[in-house]
Amino acid sequence: MFESLTVLAPGLLGGSVAKAARSRGLARRIAVWSRRMETRAALRTAGWCDAVFETAAEAAHGSELVVICAPVDQIVPLVASIRPALSPGCVVTDVGSVKSAICRQSHAALAGAEACFVGAHPMAGSERTGHEHADAELFRGRPCFVTPLADTAPASIDRTVAFWRALDARVVTESPERHDEIVAHISHLPHALASSLCSLLSRRDPRWRDLAGNGLRDSTRIAASDADLWLSIFEQNREEVLRAISAFEDEVSCFRAALANSDRLALRSLLERGRSFRHSLR
Amino acid sequence: MFESLTVLAPGLLGGSVAKAARSRGLARRIAVWSRRMETRAALRTAGWCDAVFETAAEAAHGSELVVICAPVDQIVPLVASIRPALSPGCVVTDVGSVKSAICRQSHAALAGAEACFVGAHPMAGSERTGHEHADAELFRGRPCFVTPLADTAPASIDRTVAFWRALDARVVTESPERHDEIVAHISHLPHALASSLCSLLSRRDPRWRDLAGNGLRDSTRIAASDADLWLSIFEQNREEVLRAISAFEDEVSCFRAALANSDRLALRSLLERGRSFRHSLR
Repeated sequence: MFESLTVLAPGLLGGSVAKAARSRGLARRIAVWSRRMETRAALRTAGWCDAVFETAAEAAHGSELVVICAPVDQIVPLVASIRPALSPGCVVTDVGSVKSAICRQSHAALAGAEACFVGAHPMAGSERTGHEHADAELFRGRPCFVTPLADTAPASIDRTVAFWRALDARVVTESPERHDEIVAHISHLPHALASSLCSLLSRRDPRWRDLAGNGLRDSTRIAASDADLWLSIFEQNREEVLRAISAFEDEVSCFRAALANSDRLALRSLLERGRSFRHSLR
Repeated sequence: MFESLTVLAPGLLGGSVAKAARSRGLARRIAVWSRRMETRAALRTAGWCDAVFETAAEAAHGSELVVICAPVDQIVPLVASIRPALSPGCVVTDVGSVKSAICRQSHAALAGAEACFVGAHPMAGSERTGHEHADAELFRGRPCFVTPLADTAPASIDRTVAFWRALDARVVTESPERHDEIVAHISHLPHALASSLCSLLSRRDPRWRDLAGNGLRDSTRIAASDADLWLSIFEQNREEVLRAISAFEDEVSCFRAALANSDRLALRSLLERGRSFRHSLR
């Protein structure tokens, strides 16, 4: 499919992109770059990449597809830094959890270049981090947003969609703004709630920690994620996350009122709506 | 340990109690009762019980330990209904998720009898229900509250504690009131949040359901539980759950304010507190 593929800042996601591409024979050559010297040293012994570079620009040089897997606040600076090295027709994509700002600013950073940015966001991951946990099947059956702008070249969109499909992801094309609204509700809001719940419980009797059942464990798993990564995600999707939190506050206040008023009908109907939604998740 | 053990209304928990007791040789004879005729028929072929009765009183007759595994709103009526059949010295315990009302009312229901009620609540379970999913190791390493009243006979407390320990649970003794405060925070609040989140999302674009990642799936798993069971739990623990919801509302409002005001320090510190609490769960 590609003569040369570049993965910048491979962690769990980037390592999985590279491994998945390798195992499916999608790229003859896979080049990588990582900011940390220790990681670069480790990558030199990884079987799923062929060349490790000291700079992002060198790693991107000559590639047909560059996948940026850095934290969301580092994606646009990386796009700007590799611009001089990009070949004509190169597509730059990413795996960032927020899309509006990244897509518009990356588009601007490549204005006038012969390369093109097409944002992506695979809904895959785990509480594990680091390329050492990379998994060639991480994206299989998982949703992956591809978020072109209105004036993104159709050929570049097609190539990005085809790439994620080839990794066995279920590709969904949405505008960056619509993506941000959706994930604010289905990913960022749940995270905000889990973090808030854990933050609340951290100020209660420490012995309660030993009494948790699987319910608390499951419902707060995402709160164990890196705080700085998520700080950037929340900041980049501030408006949509605030809207989702407000909607949630209204809902939980309905729950509280129904319970306080012993309104069995209202409380039962809320629980039943929730149960039915949860059962409908693929 | 026991000549005769009775399990009333065995579902996932009751079936697991019986299987665990059988596999550990804790009771020579295990008697059961179930409200539904179909369940009684199925239980007659289950290897982990010896006798299936048409009424709860018959099943409880002559037993040294009766474990009531019915939904929380049916426990006190069952205690009252088996009272005439209880042997002197018999201990009646349960697995209900709420304790104050159940313990006081069951104590009253047995006033003057030579049998004694000692509440219990193993923090074990799963989204699976039904005795066919029973597991002899369900309680291994799991917390189990035992919640005596101030005037519960020490010998009955000891016997209840010893029983749950013999199933390999980690027994924690608390007053029923303290139990209800703790589980309002670590179990009922997470459930209220998951149900509210799912209820909110059920009113958004149905196509979003196909886009959920594991984060949403994990954090809402408990919302898939039976609505009526949980309605009773919330009602029986109304005051404590309302208090926990209010505390959570304050916390999420801090999250929202920090994000709205771009107060990175406050937001980062909330996320970090949450992360650190989540990592501290056993």
